[in-house]
Amino acid sequence: MRLHREDVLAGALGLLDQEGLEGLTMRRLAASLGVGPSALYWHYRDKQALLEAIAEEIMSGVADVDAALPPRERTAELARRLRLALLARRDGARVLSGTYVRLPNTLRFGEVAVLALAATGVPEAETALAFFAVQDYVLGHVIEEQSREHQLATTDRTPTPDAATTGDYPAIGTAIRHWAERTPDDRFEYGLRLLLDGLDRRTGA
Amino acid sequence: MRLHREDVLAGALGLLDQEGLEGLTMRRLAASLGVGPSALYWHYRDKQALLEAIAEEIMSGVADVDAALPPRERTAELARRLRLALLARRDGARVLSGTYVRLPNTLRFGEVAVLALAATGVPEAETALAFFAVQDYVLGHVIEEQSREHQLATTDRTPTPDAATTGDYPAIGTAIRHWAERTPDDRFEYGLRLLLDGLDRRTGA
Repeated sequence: MRLHREDVLAGALGLLDQEGLEGLTMRRLAASLGVGPSALYWHYRDKQALLEAIAEEIMSGVADVDAALPPRERTAELARRLRLALLARRDGARVLSGTYVRLPNTLRFGEVAVLALAATGVPEAETALAFFAVQDYVLGHVIEEQSREHQLATTDRTPTPDAATTGDYPAIGTAIRHWAERTPDDRFEYGLRLLLDGLDRRTGA
Repeated sequence: MRLHREDVLAGALGLLDQEGLEGLTMRRLAASLGVGPSALYWHYRDKQALLEAIAEEIMSGVADVDAALPPRERTAELARRLRLALLARRDGARVLSGTYVRLPNTLRFGEVAVLALAATGVPEAETALAFFAVQDYVLGHVIEEQSREHQLATTDRTPTPDAATTGDYPAIGTAIRHWAERTPDDRFEYGLRLLLDGLDRRTGA
């Protein structure tokens, strides 16, 4: 059987979902596909290239936001769609962070986001600063969100400190108990709104 | 020679700086210290516990911000100090993300930050939402920053797309060329200011 590039990518996605990013090695991937490692390197020159292909797959369709939305809402929707795309894949945020993909889905996401930001009134020289500020927030947020899920699922550690562990630090203890009552969506929206309100001030909206 | 807990931590920090997070395995650490793996597990029950100790070490002194600063500036300084502490250690941001440490340096950072946010006028029920929004941004930003440095140092990939790769996406291409002219500090400050301005709006400042 000939091994196609798509088979390698599909195998990598399957292995990622099963084992997480730590378990995704070229050796294990080759074994799971029943080939030698050199068969993988024929299609992807190194693991980084494979991670870029996975990142590009994660970004598929994320840019497909309703162009008729007002620009602030369009920016918010792009951030929400990015979060959901990352959450849909095990360790999605850790895969995407640090890949710097220059492939169509990823570039188109940047293009649509920068145009939305420009339409809110952000000066052209600042649109990438604003874009990366929002993207950095989404990445950091989802990395924390996915790590928390993973810890809940696999260890006896509870990611929410209880009163006993925060006894000497009452303010963070109380604050986190309020935080624990909010939904994951609420928590994400809070930071997103801060950024968008900050952009409003910047553009005089 | 008896192996102390501090020796294990010092060895782990050395291995992290040399090899990065991927290269920090319990097996390699034991070998570098000239002991068997069981000697490590005597001090740290698993790799996660060791990562928590590293994270706690990274957070040492980060909360030591001037309490006389106005609360908005105090919040900004805490975010800046967190970024610098993460940058000081190879893969620092990736180590810290997802550790959920409940050790004194980390708890004190949360305590000081939550008190600063409360002093800006953020309602008690929202202080942790605001705290994590800022922390998520810092983590995401520094993860990207450290990955970019690493790619520049080790591969032939340039993390800044050039005109050729963004030909069909002119807006993101132009935006990134502006972004490339800014300093790393400027890029960080831009997003931080958006968040703080958003908090100002929230508190009516």
